[in-house]
Amino acid sequence: MKILAVNCGSSSLKFQMYEMPEEKVLISGNFERIGIENSFYSYKLNGEKIKKEAELKNHAEAVKILVQELLDNNIVESLDEIKGIGHRVVQGADKFDKSVLVTDEVIKTIDELSSLAPLHNPAALVGINAFMSIVSNAKHVVVFDTAFHQTMARETYLYALPYELYEKYGVRKYGAHGTSHKYITKTMEKYYGENKKLIVCHIGSGCSITAVKDGKVVDTSMGFTPNAGVIMGTRTGDMDASIIPYLIKKLGYSADDIDRLINKESGFKGITGGISDSRDIEDGIKEGNEKCILAQKMFVRSVVNYIAKYYVLLNGADAICFTAGIGENSPETRKEIMDSLSSLGVKVDDEANNSRGKFVKVSSDDSKIECFVVPTDEEVMISRDTYELVK
Amino acid sequence: MKILAVNCGSSSLKFQMYEMPEEKVLISGNFERIGIENSFYSYKLNGEKIKKEAELKNHAEAVKILVQELLDNNIVESLDEIKGIGHRVVQGADKFDKSVLVTDEVIKTIDELSSLAPLHNPAALVGINAFMSIVSNAKHVVVFDTAFHQTMARETYLYALPYELYEKYGVRKYGAHGTSHKYITKTMEKYYGENKKLIVCHIGSGCSITAVKDGKVVDTSMGFTPNAGVIMGTRTGDMDASIIPYLIKKLGYSADDIDRLINKESGFKGITGGISDSRDIEDGIKEGNEKCILAQKMFVRSVVNYIAKYYVLLNGADAICFTAGIGENSPETRKEIMDSLSSLGVKVDDEANNSRGKFVKVSSDDSKIECFVVPTDEEVMISRDTYELVK
Repeated sequence: MKILAVNCGSSSLKFQMYEMPEEKVLISGNFERIGIENSFYSYKLNGEKIKKEAELKNHAEAVKILVQELLDNNIVESLDEIKGIGHRVVQGADKFDKSVLVTDEVIKTIDELSSLAPLHNPAALVGINAFMSIVSNAKHVVVFDTAFHQTMARETYLYALPYELYEKYGVRKYGAHGTSHKYITKTMEKYYGENKKLIVCHIGSGCSITAVKDGKVVDTSMGFTPNAGVIMGTRTGDMDASIIPYLIKKLGYSADDIDRLINKESGFKGITGGISDSRDIEDGIKEGNEKCILAQKMFVRSVVNYIAKYYVLLNGADAICFTAGIGENSPETRKEIMDSLSSLGVKVDDEANNSRGKFVKVSSDDSKIECFVVPTDEEVMISRDTYELVK
Repeated sequence: MKILAVNCGSSSLKFQMYEMPEEKVLISGNFERIGIENSFYSYKLNGEKIKKEAELKNHAEAVKILVQELLDNNIVESLDEIKGIGHRVVQGADKFDKSVLVTDEVIKTIDELSSLAPLHNPAALVGINAFMSIVSNAKHVVVFDTAFHQTMARETYLYALPYELYEKYGVRKYGAHGTSHKYITKTMEKYYGENKKLIVCHIGSGCSITAVKDGKVVDTSMGFTPNAGVIMGTRTGDMDASIIPYLIKKLGYSADDIDRLINKESGFKGITGGISDSRDIEDGIKEGNEKCILAQKMFVRSVVNYIAKYYVLLNGADAICFTAGIGENSPETRKEIMDSLSSLGVKVDDEANNSRGKFVKVSSDDSKIECFVVPTDEEVMISRDTYELVK
């Protein structure tokens, strides 16, 4: 059965088509700068990467080109072969604790949740509508980034704010990257068996760390929004919230200025004065750039803080899993994190840790907690959830 | 030598007079509702508590009454006997890493730091000026709540915000309760010797937790302001800062509304809908009040989170010290915290822990980390610093 996994941003559309349940990738690609000049798309097919310019006025035009490419490249002979399309949605709040088939009611709820994810949920809806009108015989499924985190206890997801802000305005912790955390959890269950205590470190340009017990999320570092938790490429992570009213009074910032400041101008970028990519931070460190060294220390510390908290919360941990851009590809950062955890009995296997982008155990055999690199795959997770609902 | 320790708030003046270096308390008291109707003062002398009504239009009037009481009660025969007056100041920022004698320059700097502590520093200056004009022959000393925390490393006190917000506007972690944390550290040094790793939990209506190594602060939970860190009576502690721009947009809140919300309407009070005192929370728990049970779970968790972080940061800890209102007087809360730390090898001595307000070891002999109740005494710490500078 052919399943398409889709991830729509406000000006982008990523896709990956699978033969299920074999999980064989048939084609994958990306439409960029939708609705902006100089738009283009690219796809990967049989190991080859093709890039084409195209006028993409809106998501519907991107979808039309996508399905034509599927036909032209003989991925499908007819669109009816596409049985399911899985759409990634950032914010499902406490309305969805699992992936669901799209209905009018589901679309209405995603729309209502837009105030909690003003950039993301509307973009997802544009994509869903475009695909539903053009690939109308497929079943459509929505896969929420928040669903896997819905098992958190009330004392974990609440903030110490007036309770009515939760009841009336939904102010609570939702978390994010749930699809990735679920994929890692399922991968570790296959490797390890169930009933394990995992600390999953999804650390890339966005970062979230999740405490998982018996396959369920106990706590996660992102909060009401994806700004909270660990220091990120351009996001602050945790900070004293009182800084915000201070900046408003001192500098006349608006709410939008604050959103931009803490989401787009902070993190690595803020500390270094412009360098947001962790690979550039690593290059800077090699060149002795003092701000890069500082940013890396702060980043490692913020990750270690969460691992420490979750170790105690879980009452001990069986495994720490590293995934996403930094987690999969930076032996140096992994080593710094693991070395900082020596009081918990973590010991690195330096040879095994000198590895990028593949599943490997990176702790030594006498480490009290096992540490792994586990490459994530959100697309296959979307595809699996979709297949289960449409098969 | 007679030394007076003073703590001025915007409408209050607390004092304690000592015979130094014996640290004998001669008289202590409190002026309340200064500048407000129905003002009064009270003092404790020879075990007796006296309360008097008095019109207190300003701090100078309170100081005049105070010195008259000192004379009338034969605490001093002449004001010249008061050799030193130590004034508590909340915010010394990175300008002061220890207590200092008051000079014009010092007063100017405290005034300039008022934008970082708009309620507290101006009140302290009013008190300093009143005492300097009325007890003019004494030497005056300022003791900063932030000074003891000035040993934090740059990677610890910085936020992942644009670096220029630190350079131009002083946005960094300063911490608070430094005088209390210093007192506990000194007390433990006497008990234990130096070169120990301590986690000091000052938990009362305000809370801060500090990691101390070799007598120096490595990290502390309060931040740019005393709003950060652990959940408190009316303060949020750590939260996703993005909630603030959301509330501004959704509810039209101003910066002052936000300050009031997160400092006065949150914490225990916010969660329970009105109960801010930890003793009332404990009563509520006994009565089965569900919100009190929830607030307590969230509070204990927030304390445990910091202990976990600091345990790993310090690469292990010798002792956890509990102090201030809750720390000294709530065996239940201490037990809940220690029980949550079993993965770090903490074990409670239930019998020893059934104690209030006195120095006692509350962990069992086979606990991997020793736990203590250490009653704090900020006034004697102010008096000691003052005595050292004026003797």
